Amino acid sequence: MQISGRNKLKGRVTSVIPGTVTAEVEVDIGGGNRVAGVITRRSLDEMGIKNGDEITALIKATSVMFIKE
Amino acid sequence: MQISGRNKLKGRVTSVIPGTVTAEVEVDIGGGNRVAGVITRRSLDEMGIKNGDEITALIKATSVMFIKE
Amino acid sequence: MQISGRNKLKGRVTSVIPGTVTAEVEVDIGGGNRVAGVITRRSLDEMGIKNGDEITALIKATSVMFIKE
Amino acid sequence: MQISGRNKLKGRVTSVIPGTVTAEVEVDIGGGNRVAGVITRRSLDEMGIKNGDEITALIKATSVMFIKE
Amino acid sequence: MQISGRNKLKGRVTSVIPGTVTAEVEVDIGGGNRVAGVITRRSLDEMGIKNGDEITALIKATSVMFIKE
Amino acid sequence: MQISGRNKLKGRVTSVIPGTVTAEVEVDIGGGNRVAGVITRRSLDEMGIKNGDEITALIKATSVMFIKE
Repeated sequence: MQISGRNKLKGRVTSVIPGTVTAEVEVDIGGGNRVAGVITRRSLDEMGIKNGDEITALIKATSVMFIKE
Repeated sequence: MQISGRNKLKGRVTSVIPGTVTAEVEVDIGGGNRVAGVITRRSLDEMGIKNGDEITALIKATSVMFIKE
Repeated sequence: MQISGRNKLKGRVTSVIPGTVTAEVEVDIGGGNRVAGVITRRSLDEMGIKNGDEITALIKATSVMFIKE
Repeated sequence: MQISGRNKLKGRVTSVIPGTVTAEVEVDIGGGNRVAGVITRRSLDEMGIKNGDEITALIKATSVMFIKE
Repeated sequence: MQISGRNKLKGRVTSVIPGTVTAEVEVDIGGGNRVAGVITRRSLDEMGIKNGDEITALIKATSVMFIKE
Repeated sequence: MQISGRNKLKGRVTSVIPGTVTAEVEVDIGGGNRVAGVITRRSLDEMGIKNGDEITALIKATSVMFIKE
């Protein structure tokens, strides 16, 4: 299976904050980096995401900006 | 200066593809990960982004999905 | 494999417009509906998407708005 | 009135989950497909969206990804 | 007609850059502010957007970040 | 510091709605316009955003649609 979303960052869940409609999931992707995402509460429950799980963050290239100092 | 975009991934530019309206920039963020982003051509030119530059990918948490195998 | 993106709309590719950086793909999802998406040209090439292919449009719930008349 | 958002999927509301800041709305768009969206709670209230309403999901083409098996 | 997208900024088109797949449109919304958007080339052509047109920028609240100095 | 996000709209916070996972912030950007954004609750707290603060809304051009009457 192939997904057009260009960025797939594999990691381990370090934090889950469940809300009524949405939920925040934070993942340690290595190299000192963490990625936080907000998904629907329903997806969180259906996928059973919890601390320590191995999951992959998926990010579409058009959602990425850049900062230059 | 603080930005609400939760994900800031520092890296080095490995590829730039300039188009008429948009441009693709790919960054090596360490840990074996690369992040590709599509920005406007005008931003690319104004920021003078080129191979080897140190830049930071900025991603809003609501743009992040998760895959679980 | 599970993806947190809530909307998966299966269909058949009816049109592909390749550009330098991005590409537009249009899919007939049945029920008289078509879905158009803009992905990177690199994803188009790597996935080898062409007219007639069976593919699934994936849309994160936070990207969906509603219109009421 | 014309909107640049390319995807307009007409349907009937099958579920509403109101939260403090956001709300989830699910719509049956026919052909066996449902589309879920997360909007602000304020938009939900101002538009008075409820089960059974006829509404149209609006999705910008740059928010659409594709999966190929 | 009501749209859940919370931000509607009315203005006048000051620049159009057409590409193969996408197009950039810039709008003067008053108060010294300009808003640039990237839409599909097909939407640009179908809507016949050109310099001087009165149009409204539509932005979903989940796409807005904040910077504080 | 330069950010590729093309739209930076400076204003003053007129309303904050904190939720468990997300928060809504509304900003008066002048010229009779307001911009509402949904960010994570954690960003709201870390940045200490409150009524009356001077902040800048940041919007990526690929998130902007247009309406023409």
